[in-house]
Amino acid sequence: MPEHKELSDQLFLELKKRTIQAKDLSYSPYSKFKVGCCILADTNNDTGNGNTVWFVGANVENASYGACICAERSAIIQAVMNGYKKFKAIGVSTISTEISSPCGICRQFIYEFSNGKDIPIYLFNDDGSKFIKVCLFELLPLGFGPSDLDVQV
Amino acid sequence: MPEHKELSDQLFLELKKRTIQAKDLSYSPYSKFKVGCCILADTNNDTGNGNTVWFVGANVENASYGACICAERSAIIQAVMNGYKKFKAIGVSTISTEISSPCGICRQFIYEFSNGKDIPIYLFNDDGSKFIKVCLFELLPLGFGPSDLDVQV
Amino acid sequence: MPEHKELSDQLFLELKKRTIQAKDLSYSPYSKFKVGCCILADTNNDTGNGNTVWFVGANVENASYGACICAERSAIIQAVMNGYKKFKAIGVSTISTEISSPCGICRQFIYEFSNGKDIPIYLFNDDGSKFIKVCLFELLPLGFGPSDLDVQV
Amino acid sequence: MPEHKELSDQLFLELKKRTIQAKDLSYSPYSKFKVGCCILADTNNDTGNGNTVWFVGANVENASYGACICAERSAIIQAVMNGYKKFKAIGVSTISTEISSPCGICRQFIYEFSNGKDIPIYLFNDDGSKFIKVCLFELLPLGFGPSDLDVQV
Ligand SMILES: [Zn+2]
Ligand SMILES: [Zn+2]
Ligand SMILES: [Zn+2]
Ligand SMILES: [Zn+2]
Repeated sequence: MPEHKELSDQLFLELKKRTIQAKDLSYSPYSKFKVGCCILADTNNDTGNGNTVWFVGANVENASYGACICAERSAIIQAVMNGYKKFKAIGVSTISTEISSPCGICRQFIYEFSNGKDIPIYLFNDDGSKFIKVCLFELLPLGFGPSDLDVQV
Repeated sequence: MPEHKELSDQLFLELKKRTIQAKDLSYSPYSKFKVGCCILADTNNDTGNGNTVWFVGANVENASYGACICAERSAIIQAVMNGYKKFKAIGVSTISTEISSPCGICRQFIYEFSNGKDIPIYLFNDDGSKFIKVCLFELLPLGFGPSDLDVQV
Repeated sequence: MPEHKELSDQLFLELKKRTIQAKDLSYSPYSKFKVGCCILADTNNDTGNGNTVWFVGANVENASYGACICAERSAIIQAVMNGYKKFKAIGVSTISTEISSPCGICRQFIYEFSNGKDIPIYLFNDDGSKFIKVCLFELLPLGFGPSDLDVQV
Repeated sequence: MPEHKELSDQLFLELKKRTIQAKDLSYSPYSKFKVGCCILADTNNDTGNGNTVWFVGANVENASYGACICAERSAIIQAVMNGYKKFKAIGVSTISTEISSPCGICRQFIYEFSNGKDIPIYLFNDDGSKFIKVCLFELLPLGFGPSDLDVQV
C-alpha cells in the first residue's frame, strides 16, 4: 500500500477505482485524451467509514477549445450541484501510462473551495499502477482567491 | 398557457418549476447573479409522459472570473456525466425580473451536442411570470462545431 | 466586388489581406487549425480614407484546451490594449477552404464592446476566394451583456 | 533595491514602472479590480542593456464572467502576436495595497511558453511599494503542458 495517510485503505482503494473508471464518461473527440476525476466529499464525519459521498467527473470538450471543461471541474460541479463544497480527497487519472497533474484552471477551480484548508490530491496513471500524492497548496501556492477581491465566501 | 408546443403542459410546468428552483444551487459570491438551468434529456421516448430524465445546474463562480461556469454548462455537465448527450428542452432562469438569454459560451457548449437537431430553450424571469421560447439555432446561427474541424462526434 | 457596403473597396481589400495574413501568427500545435482575425477600429472618422487603425490577432492554444484564446479575442485584446473599444469591421479567416464562423465565446467577447451598435463581420475562407458578410447581432441575437447585470460600461 | 538579480537595476525599475502603468488599460466594469502586467521579452541578448522589447496587458472583463481575460494573458497575447514566445521577466500589479499572485489560468497560460525554462515573476502591489519575486515553476509545480499530450511545440 503506498502512502495515503489521509484515507483508510478502503477509502483509498475506492477512490482509486472510481477515479480510473470515471474516464469512461469522457467526451473528448478533439484531444482523445480521456481524463477522470473522483471527489470524496467532506461530510464532517469520520473518514474511516460511515457516510461517504462520492462524485465523479470527466473532461467534456468542445469544437471551440476554449470552452472545454476538464475532469476536475466537471467533478466539482457535480459536488457543488449536490450541495457539497468541501472536499476530503480528489483523485485524477488519465489514459496515459505516465502521471499527469491538474492544469492551472482546475487548480484555480478547486482552490475556490479550499477555504484555507489543504486538500490531498491523488494522481494516478491510466490503470493506477503508478500514483503520487500531492496537495492543493503545493500545486497552487500563493493562490488567488476570494480574499484577493475582499469577498467573503 | 403560453406557447410551448414541443412539450406537454405537464412537462412544461415541470421544466419551469425545476429551472426556477435550480437557482438555489448557485455559487455566485462575485456577481451575486444567481442563474438556474434545467435540462430535459432526450431519451428517445414519447415526450408527453413516461421516462423523463431531468438535470439541473447553476452558475459556479470563481475569484478568477475567467474560471466561472454558467448554469447552462453546469447542467449539461450533469447530463453528460450521467450518459445523456441529447437534450429535448432547456430552461434558464435568473434572479432578474427581466428575461436574460444564455451567454455565447453556453450557446457554444450546447451547440456541441446538437448534432444537427435544434433544441428549444425556454427563458424565464425570476419567478416564471415572464417567459419566451427561443431555439438553439436562432441563438447561434452559423455555429462553429465539430464539422469545422473535420471531427466526427 | 462582393457586397461590403460598409467599407470602401480599398478598405475591404485591405481588411481581407490583413485577415488572411494574420493566420501566420497562430500558435496552434493542438488543433493545427490556424485562424486569423483583423479589426478595423472605429476612430469616428470617415470610413473611406483617412485615419484607419488596424489590429490583428490569431489563435493561441494551450495544452489545457480550456485556456485557448481564439483569433477574434486575440485581436480585440490588441485593440483594447491600444485604447480602441469601438470596431468598424472585423474579418476572420481560417486555413479551411470552407468558411467558418466565430465561436460563441468570441461572439460574446465582441458583443461586450458593441454598445448597441451592430458590427459587420467578414468571414473569409483560407485564401479569401470565398466570403460572406454577417453582423454581430445576427450571430448573437438576444445577447447577454452589461445591461443584464445592470452594469454601466 | 530589493532582490531581483535576474535583471539589472535599470531593467527592474523599467519593468516596475510599466507594470504599474499597465493597469490604466484595464477594462473591468464588473470586478472593478484593475490589474496590469508587463513582459520583458527574451530576445536572446544580454539582459543588462541593449535590445529590450516590452509588452503590456491589462484585464479585459465580460458580462459573461467566464469570458474574462486577465492581464497576464492579455500581455502574453501581445507578445505572441508580435512574434515573441520567450519571456525573460514578467511583472504583475493590481490596485490593491497588498500583493496578489496570478490566477491558475494565467499560470497555465504562461507555462505553455516556458519550454522547460523557469521565468521570474515580480508581484507588485498598487504603487510598487511592496513586491516579491516568485518563479513560474514555484507557482505551477508539476505543470500540465505539451508533453502530457505528446505534442511537440
Ligand atoms: Zn484542467
Ligand atoms: Zn453562459
Ligand atoms: Zn472563438
Ligand atoms: Zn489570471
